[in-house]
Amino acid sequence: MGEPETQGIDGTPADAPEHGIYGEDGVIAAPFLAHIGAAIADRDTLALKEDVGSLHTSEVGDLLEALIPEQRRALVQLMGEEFDFTALTEVDEAIRLDIVGSLPNAQIAKALQHLESDDAVYILEDLEQADQDEILSRLPFTERVRLRRSLGYPEETAGRRMQTEFVAVPPFWTVGQTIDYMRDEQNLPESFSQIFVIDPTFRLVGAVDLDRILRTKRAVKIEDVMRETRHAIPATMDQEEAAKIFEQYDLLSAAVVDENERLVGVLTIDDVVDVITQEAEEDLMRMGGVGDEELSDSVLAAGRSRVPWLMVNLVTAFLAASVISLFDGTIEQIVALAILMPIVAGMGGNAGSQTMTVTVRALATRDLDIYNAGRIIRREMAVGILNGVIFATLIGLVAGIWFQDVNIGGIIAAAMIINMFVAALAGILIPLLLDRLGADPAVASAVFLTTVTDVVGFFAFLGLATWWFGLL
Amino acid sequence: MGEPETQGIDGTPADAPEHGIYGEDGVIAAPFLAHIGAAIADRDTLALKEDVGSLHTSEVGDLLEALIPEQRRALVQLMGEEFDFTALTEVDEAIRLDIVGSLPNAQIAKALQHLESDDAVYILEDLEQADQDEILSRLPFTERVRLRRSLGYPEETAGRRMQTEFVAVPPFWTVGQTIDYMRDEQNLPESFSQIFVIDPTFRLVGAVDLDRILRTKRAVKIEDVMRETRHAIPATMDQEEAAKIFEQYDLLSAAVVDENERLVGVLTIDDVVDVITQEAEEDLMRMGGVGDEELSDSVLAAGRSRVPWLMVNLVTAFLAASVISLFDGTIEQIVALAILMPIVAGMGGNAGSQTMTVTVRALATRDLDIYNAGRIIRREMAVGILNGVIFATLIGLVAGIWFQDVNIGGIIAAAMIINMFVAALAGILIPLLLDRLGADPAVASAVFLTTVTDVVGFFAFLGLATWWFGLL
Repeated sequence: MGEPETQGIDGTPADAPEHGIYGEDGVIAAPFLAHIGAAIADRDTLALKEDVGSLHTSEVGDLLEALIPEQRRALVQLMGEEFDFTALTEVDEAIRLDIVGSLPNAQIAKALQHLESDDAVYILEDLEQADQDEILSRLPFTERVRLRRSLGYPEETAGRRMQTEFVAVPPFWTVGQTIDYMRDEQNLPESFSQIFVIDPTFRLVGAVDLDRILRTKRAVKIEDVMRETRHAIPATMDQEEAAKIFEQYDLLSAAVVDENERLVGVLTIDDVVDVITQEAEEDLMRMGGVGDEELSDSVLAAGRSRVPWLMVNLVTAFLAASVISLFDGTIEQIVALAILMPIVAGMGGNAGSQTMTVTVRALATRDLDIYNAGRIIRREMAVGILNGVIFATLIGLVAGIWFQDVNIGGIIAAAMIINMFVAALAGILIPLLLDRLGADPAVASAVFLTTVTDVVGFFAFLGLATWWFGLL
Repeated sequence: MGEPETQGIDGTPADAPEHGIYGEDGVIAAPFLAHIGAAIADRDTLALKEDVGSLHTSEVGDLLEALIPEQRRALVQLMGEEFDFTALTEVDEAIRLDIVGSLPNAQIAKALQHLESDDAVYILEDLEQADQDEILSRLPFTERVRLRRSLGYPEETAGRRMQTEFVAVPPFWTVGQTIDYMRDEQNLPESFSQIFVIDPTFRLVGAVDLDRILRTKRAVKIEDVMRETRHAIPATMDQEEAAKIFEQYDLLSAAVVDENERLVGVLTIDDVVDVITQEAEEDLMRMGGVGDEELSDSVLAAGRSRVPWLMVNLVTAFLAASVISLFDGTIEQIVALAILMPIVAGMGGNAGSQTMTVTVRALATRDLDIYNAGRIIRREMAVGILNGVIFATLIGLVAGIWFQDVNIGGIIAAAMIINMFVAALAGILIPLLLDRLGADPAVASAVFLTTVTDVVGFFAFLGLATWWFGLL
C-alpha cells in the first residue's frame, strides 16, 4: 500500500540512527516507544506531530502495532489532521477497525480525501455498509464516484486493488506537448512510472514508459513511441491471477480496464507485492490447518478457525483406531506391536507430507503440469522405495535388537517399505487429484494423506504380524 | 529476472489468442508444443526463429520446461544468435545447467553480452569456476569488470542481484541538460524508473524519479529536485533483508553502494519479487521437512534432501515408542488403550502444529515481537484449553460408548485436555525459543513439537490409566 517510491530509503530497519525507531532486531526500539508513550500520556501534541509526522507511513504502522489499544486511539486523535491514514493500510485488520471505529465518520471522510484511491478503498472495504455510505456521502462527487466504482468490484479483484489516479493522453499529442502538460498540470498522481494513451471514448490504445518519453525528441508523436497494450488487466480479474501476470512479465504497473476496454485505473507493483506475500502466507496457513486467521484475532476467533481442521483429523484418528482394534487379539499376545506401531504410521506420515509439500508448492507455482507430472510421479515413487528401504533396514534392526526378536524386526521392516511407498504415492496423487477436481490442494491434502498413512501403516504392520505369527 | 516492463501484457496466460501458447489452465498449450516439437524435428530454423523469437522470455522459459531435454538443447542450438539467454533465467537450475552445459563457452560469452548484468550473473554464478573464468575472459573489459564485481559479492546478497547499468548525473546539471543527455546518449539501460545523482568520486548523493523530472521546468537544477538517499542498500546486504526494505518502503528500485558509499548498481523490484516468492517457497518447504529441492532434481538428489528430516523424526518415533513400552503391562491388560492412544498423540500433534504455523509465519513477517508475544502466548494457551475441552468431551464420549467403559472415556478426556494444552504451549514457545537462539524456527520446530505431543500424549493417557486402574 502507499505510493511507490523510487528512491533510497529514509531510515531502514537495519540502520536508521537519524530517528532510531527500530532496534537491531528490526522491531520498534523500546526507547522510542517509551518516548512516544510518554508524549501520548502528556497529550504533547507538538512532540507527536514532530516525531510521528516525520516517519514513513509503514513505520507509523509498526508503531501503532507496538502500542496498546488505548495509546493507538489517543495517538490518532491527538495528531488530528496531521495523522496520515495511509498508515492504517499497514496494520492488522482488527487494529485498523478498532482505530477507525473510534473516529467520527466526518473525520474519516476528511482524511480519506488526502489518500490515494486504492488506500482509501482498502480502509473503506472493511467498514459497516452504513458507515461506508455515510463517509462516501461526505466526499466530493468525483472522488465518491471513483471509490464507489472500485468498491463495486468483488473483493480480491484487480478493480478493488487498482488506483484510479493516472495520467492519460491522446495518441496524436507530441512528446513535447505531453511533457509541457505534466509540467503545468497540478493534480497528477503522487507518483507514476508510465502514462496511458486513450481514445476520445476513454478506450485504452497504448502506454508509454516515462524513460521512453525522456529519450524521445519533443516533436515525436506519442502514438509513435507507445507500446500497444493488447491485454490490459480486466477489473474483475482475481488479484492472485493479476499478480501472476506481473510476476511473469516483470511489470511495474498495468492498466486496468472495464468490460468495455475502457481505462478505469492502474494496478501497481507495490500493491501486487502485498498480494504475493499475502497469498504465500495463506498457502502456508492452509497447509498448517489454520484459516485466514490474524495475529490480532481473539481467543474465540482463533479457536473457531481451528476447530474444523481438528474435527476432520478426529474422524481420521478414529478411523485409524478402528483399524488397530481389528487386531486387538494380536496386540494382547504381542505388546511389542502396540509399542512399535506408531513408528510405522508416523514415519509414513512424515515421508508423505514431504512429497505433499513439494507437490502442493509446485502446483501453486504452476511448475507441475501435465508435461512433467508423469516423470514426477515416477520420481516420487522411486524416492519412496529408496527411503523406504533405508529406514526399513534401520528400524528393522533397532526393533529386532530391542525386542530380541528377528520376526518383529522383519515384520516392521516390511511394513515400513509398504507404508513409505504408499505414502509417496498418496503424497503426490492426492494433491494432483484435488487440483483436478478444482479443490485447493493446500487445504485438504494433509487430512487425506494422514488417513492413508495411518490406516495403511497400522494395517500393514499389525496385519503382517497377525499372519506371520499365525494368529488369524 | 529480465528487464521490468511498464506496459500492458503481450499475451497473458488467461487469454492470448494472437499466439495461443497457453491453454485454459495456464500451461503451454499442447498444439503449440506439438508445433514447436515438429519444427525442431524438421530442424526448421526459420519457423522456430519466428514463433519462439516473438515470445516473451518468460514464455520461452515455460516452453523450455515443457520440452524434453533433447528438444531443449536442439531448440537453443537451432535458434543460434536469435535465442535470448534471458529465457534461461526463467527455468529450473537443473534445466539451465543442462542447456548451458551443451553450448561452447565462446557462444555463451557472445550471448551474455546482450544480457543485462543481473541476468548474466544469474546464469554465470551456477557454472564451474573454470567455465566461468573462460567465459569472462572472452568478454569486453568493462563488462568483464562489472560481472566480476557482482560475482565477487556472496550469493543471495544485493550485490549479486543488482543491475550494474544505471543512469547517473552530477547534481549541478539542470533538468534540461539531463533530458537532452538521455535523448542523445545511446547506451542507456533498457529501462529505468529513476536516475541517480553522484559526486565526481561516484559517491551517491541522491536520486530523482522520472516523473519528478517530467514535472519540472528545464532550468531547474537536479540537486533541487532530487531526493536524498541517505540509506542506499549495501551491496553485501542479504537479499531477503533488501526485499523487506522494498516491501516496507514500497520501492520500485534502490541504489546499491559499496563499502565506500560509491554507487555500484541498482536493485529493481522485479528481481525483488523473485526473491520474495523464492523465500516464501523456502519457508513452506522447510516446514514440510524438505530441503531447497527443485522439481527437476533426480531421485537421488530428492531422496537425499529428505533423509535428514526423516532421520530426526525416527529418533522422535523411538522416543515415543519407549514411553509406550513403560506401560506394556497396562496395555496387555487393557488393549483398548493401545487402540485409543494414537488419537491422543495425533490430535495433540495437529493442534500444536496449528499454533506452530501461526507462530512461525508471524516470526517470519516480524508481526510477532516482544510487544505482543505475551498476549499471543496467553491467547494460544486459552485456545489450547478451549479446544482441549471441546475435543476431550467429544473423544471421551465416543471412546466411552465404543468400549462401554466410562473410565476409559474419562481417562482419554483428561489426557486430551492435558495434551492439547501442552501442544499449544509447545507450539508457540518452541519457535520463539529457536528464533531467540538464532535458529530457523521453520526447520526445527515441527520435530521438537511432535516429540513433545507424542511423549506427553502417550504418557498422560497410559499413565493416567495405569494409575486409575491401580496397575502401578
